[in-house]
Amino acid sequence: MQVVPPALERLIHDFSRLPGIGRKTATRLALYILRRPESEAQNLAQDLLHLHSAIHLCRHCFTFSETDPCGICADAGRNRRLLCVVEEPGDQLLIEKTGAFNGLYHILHGVLAPMDGIGPDELKVRELLARVRSGTVEEVLIATSSTVPGEATASYLADQLKKTGVAASRLACGIPMGMDIKYADEYTLAHAIRARQHMVDRS
Amino acid sequence: MQVVPPALERLIHDFSRLPGIGRKTATRLALYILRRPESEAQNLAQDLLHLHSAIHLCRHCFTFSETDPCGICADAGRNRRLLCVVEEPGDQLLIEKTGAFNGLYHILHGVLAPMDGIGPDELKVRELLARVRSGTVEEVLIATSSTVPGEATASYLADQLKKTGVAASRLACGIPMGMDIKYADEYTLAHAIRARQHMVDRS
Repeated sequence: MQVVPPALERLIHDFSRLPGIGRKTATRLALYILRRPESEAQNLAQDLLHLHSAIHLCRHCFTFSETDPCGICADAGRNRRLLCVVEEPGDQLLIEKTGAFNGLYHILHGVLAPMDGIGPDELKVRELLARVRSGTVEEVLIATSSTVPGEATASYLADQLKKTGVAASRLACGIPMGMDIKYADEYTLAHAIRARQHMVDRS
Repeated sequence: MQVVPPALERLIHDFSRLPGIGRKTATRLALYILRRPESEAQNLAQDLLHLHSAIHLCRHCFTFSETDPCGICADAGRNRRLLCVVEEPGDQLLIEKTGAFNGLYHILHGVLAPMDGIGPDELKVRELLARVRSGTVEEVLIATSSTVPGEATASYLADQLKKTGVAASRLACGIPMGMDIKYADEYTLAHAIRARQHMVDRS
């Protein structure tokens, strides 16, 4: 016997296809929307319909943007000698939020994953190298994740960048700020020891 | 400087208003939808637009349904002497999933919360009492949550039902199936001891 009405079931199914949303959470969200005024569901629907038509990739950095070039690429106040390479637009948002970076970005739209058929040609690697060769960039900060595919992608990019003559750097790896070292995993701790930063020189 | 494009920002804002979805999860969901084909966003939007117009409350039990009366109320095979009172349609779905209940339902659409101005008149209590008085019901199983407001609502309903002459019952409270008792809280454990079920009689 069908207990969930079909219109509700379809929405639950839609939600449960989103990342990190299981059937239980999807049901809770759909029931919440059904209990709220119809106008809220309509707002959400309109914003969904508007999303893809409003947003495109910036021709320079390939981030999601409503303008082309995007606001950051068009901003004369940014440091054009420094280029930060990230996996996804979401990573760019996180770095912008820190306020610690004033250069430009380049979005790869993924990481190397040979098992899934994702090689350099599936990412914006050719565009990165062309941009570095033709432009004002002096240093590329490779800000891919510290995961196995993120590190592999970083190594590959460093090799490729060596041929272009620009400097390449990598996000520092170590103990997270505010973390008790007894909770750090041994690999991170070992890396933090090897990459230790000197505070006082021998006198 | 605006890093998140406005169309994306609006969708993130919409998602972050849903229960249990913070700004970070909302951003992840919106970026996921942006990376997927436009047709998927359109499907989700259509299902949202369709939701409220397709679904109404059943005139008998007040559950969400596309038909009136709903499938369960219209089903001649259900036991019309047993009525299960739940807080929300989601609770009904959970009980149906167990397969352990074959009676009818009555959805309160909330619990008593005097501090928030929610009294019996804001819930489907008058409708419950009218239904019990006029119908075939012999027992009302009060399946509100075992929370403070859920218990208060159950007590109130039991008082009201006493006047109608039908039996009222409550979901059993005790140790969850499969749980090691060392993880049970002391209140649940104390209740489970007092409400112990005899297995063998004295011979």
